Amino acid sequence: MKESINQSFKTLREKSPLVQSITNYVVMNNTANALLSLGASPIMAHAKSEVMDMVSIVNALVINIGTLDEYWVESMLMAVEKANQLGKPWVLDPVGAGATRYRNETISELLKHKPSIIRGNASEILSLADVNIQSRGVDSSHGSEEAIQAAFSLSKEIGCVVCISGEKDYIVEGDKLSSLANGNAMMAKVTGMGCTASAIVGAFAGVENDLFLATTSAMAVLGVAGEIAAEKSKGPGTLQLHLYDALYNLDGEELMERIKVES
Amino acid sequence: MKESINQSFKTLREKSPLVQSITNYVVMNNTANALLSLGASPIMAHAKSEVMDMVSIVNALVINIGTLDEYWVESMLMAVEKANQLGKPWVLDPVGAGATRYRNETISELLKHKPSIIRGNASEILSLADVNIQSRGVDSSHGSEEAIQAAFSLSKEIGCVVCISGEKDYIVEGDKLSSLANGNAMMAKVTGMGCTASAIVGAFAGVENDLFLATTSAMAVLGVAGEIAAEKSKGPGTLQLHLYDALYNLDGEELMERIKVES
Amino acid sequence: MKESINQSFKTLREKSPLVQSITNYVVMNNTANALLSLGASPIMAHAKSEVMDMVSIVNALVINIGTLDEYWVESMLMAVEKANQLGKPWVLDPVGAGATRYRNETISELLKHKPSIIRGNASEILSLADVNIQSRGVDSSHGSEEAIQAAFSLSKEIGCVVCISGEKDYIVEGDKLSSLANGNAMMAKVTGMGCTASAIVGAFAGVENDLFLATTSAMAVLGVAGEIAAEKSKGPGTLQLHLYDALYNLDGEELMERIKVES
Repeated sequence: MKESINQSFKTLREKSPLVQSITNYVVMNNTANALLSLGASPIMAHAKSEVMDMVSIVNALVINIGTLDEYWVESMLMAVEKANQLGKPWVLDPVGAGATRYRNETISELLKHKPSIIRGNASEILSLADVNIQSRGVDSSHGSEEAIQAAFSLSKEIGCVVCISGEKDYIVEGDKLSSLANGNAMMAKVTGMGCTASAIVGAFAGVENDLFLATTSAMAVLGVAGEIAAEKSKGPGTLQLHLYDALYNLDGEELMERIKVES
Repeated sequence: MKESINQSFKTLREKSPLVQSITNYVVMNNTANALLSLGASPIMAHAKSEVMDMVSIVNALVINIGTLDEYWVESMLMAVEKANQLGKPWVLDPVGAGATRYRNETISELLKHKPSIIRGNASEILSLADVNIQSRGVDSSHGSEEAIQAAFSLSKEIGCVVCISGEKDYIVEGDKLSSLANGNAMMAKVTGMGCTASAIVGAFAGVENDLFLATTSAMAVLGVAGEIAAEKSKGPGTLQLHLYDALYNLDGEELMERIKVES
Repeated sequence: MKESINQSFKTLREKSPLVQSITNYVVMNNTANALLSLGASPIMAHAKSEVMDMVSIVNALVINIGTLDEYWVESMLMAVEKANQLGKPWVLDPVGAGATRYRNETISELLKHKPSIIRGNASEILSLADVNIQSRGVDSSHGSEEAIQAAFSLSKEIGCVVCISGEKDYIVEGDKLSSLANGNAMMAKVTGMGCTASAIVGAFAGVENDLFLATTSAMAVLGVAGEIAAEKSKGPGTLQLHLYDALYNLDGEELMERIKVES
């Protein structure tokens, strides 16, 4: 697995995929910087007048509902329909799933369009598999292990890859499971780290057809870069920017040495 | 007072309040990071379809009109009505008060719903107390001392706590006054520092019923963290992230040592 | 030229111009911080209910179409009409020109209102001069030299200053040309660096009537600050904040020593 992850990382650097994010206001800057540092090209465009044209020129689409509203949800639906028509991969980040009825309804609509990959924290994935779970805002109140069965159900129901991120990350597709033990607890104290993960998943999905591998690679790269960054940081502020530096400077050798993957 | 501030800081860390901000685009990332670093949980949600449901699950609400428009103002009004119904504290940050007629009209509408706490710079507080003052955009052209009388009037009229932030911070409620001499002049060169102050005020209001103490505590913690950060910084760029580190690493002992409060 | 650049830099610091940006969500925080660090005052306001009032109190206006939508485009048009009525300079940053039909149509509308200055990367400037060029999202796939002829045509057609930013920056007005060889390649790995350039161009245009000089000065200051920042940075993350520090700490002497300008 390590060798394949390293190979998709190399491919990403060579191909520099164009990734369109329709995402929340809070993290736009972070995710754009993370994609640039990694070697991908970010595009943020949400106008109904252009959203489908933009999907036509990108390699992957990321939909993040963090600061959703009625206009943005319409754009998201237009964009995912277009992505499906063109056979392009799209990632769903169901931020705050379970927090309000409107979020749950929006997620139901989006799930009908069958995302290629879903990435969320444990509470969000549990909420997607069972709408009766009331989440506590945008933070997870569940350990990622608790959501593995939910991820398997969801993967089979939708026919997609499901990633639970947390202290350990789990990636599920059909009956396959991989897990990653990289990263650092302080990453949870930087806003939008999950959203950044989804953006990076999108970048890998833009260059790697095996979406289980693409998702595992993305989480491995972010986890390793986060670890490297945390070693140089004294808090969440310095961590955020050392993360961009680490993504920018990461080489295959260091990636290989540090990855803690099981599958 | 110092001891009480320290106690509310401890309470905040233990309870990790959920704070909803309907705030401006410029500072969303900053304020979310400041809240996370401090130990609170940020939520940003503004859709009319969910804003009231979100208010139901949070501990406090912060309304910041920085990049207001017609849709967002409607959301803000829905949110503050709901907060009042549920008896939850809400903070008003009247960014750019006095700069345009639309801002003044919006502030008038919001004031009718009686914020629990108002935090602004001296020009903004002067403008709220007397709409004839034309402010210079979002920066204060008045020293904070000049606005103390206006803060007293406003506090009595609305029945709320009023905080004037600046080189010195003043907190007013009824006839009570406290002042803080922490912080560093370079903080004014980082965008959204006032908005961050309002968010932190919201976090303290979410755990401390005495809103005069909550506001004083919030400004003390931000001032002390800003001071610590400034000592390690060579400009506004490094200051911004050292601030998050300082909020994250701040302990009660250092807080107590550094607070310069009078009341 | 160096001496004049230094003089306009001094003027900017003295006058602290108020710059209104109607810009994209991704970069609002960055551009506000860059303007503050430089010594200018940023305002972000886009509501149709106030956008014209706000134009009345600022020294310059910057229009950046990065995350445009129907509402924002209407605001932009209202703002530029008002700026023209009042004889205030306005800068157009045609982000992603050529990427979609909607972007091209919006740019055509904006060009009818004759911007004072246009700043873009080579692909964007080529696209403006010849709508048949399909750009690759928001990154330039052309060297800045390739766009010089297009810039001359555009400058003569619109009667404005045109700036092509890239490894080398070119500034054109009528038959005049200046070029700058400052900056660092890593700047392209920080999101919104071009948008920041446009904001700084706006700040200089707010204090210097000679817009060819204002634009050259802005690009020189950003290029020099970027160079200084890059020397202290290990990647795009640390570069971004060292840039604010460098803008804040820059003095005329260092600026003069480092500027590589030809005209």
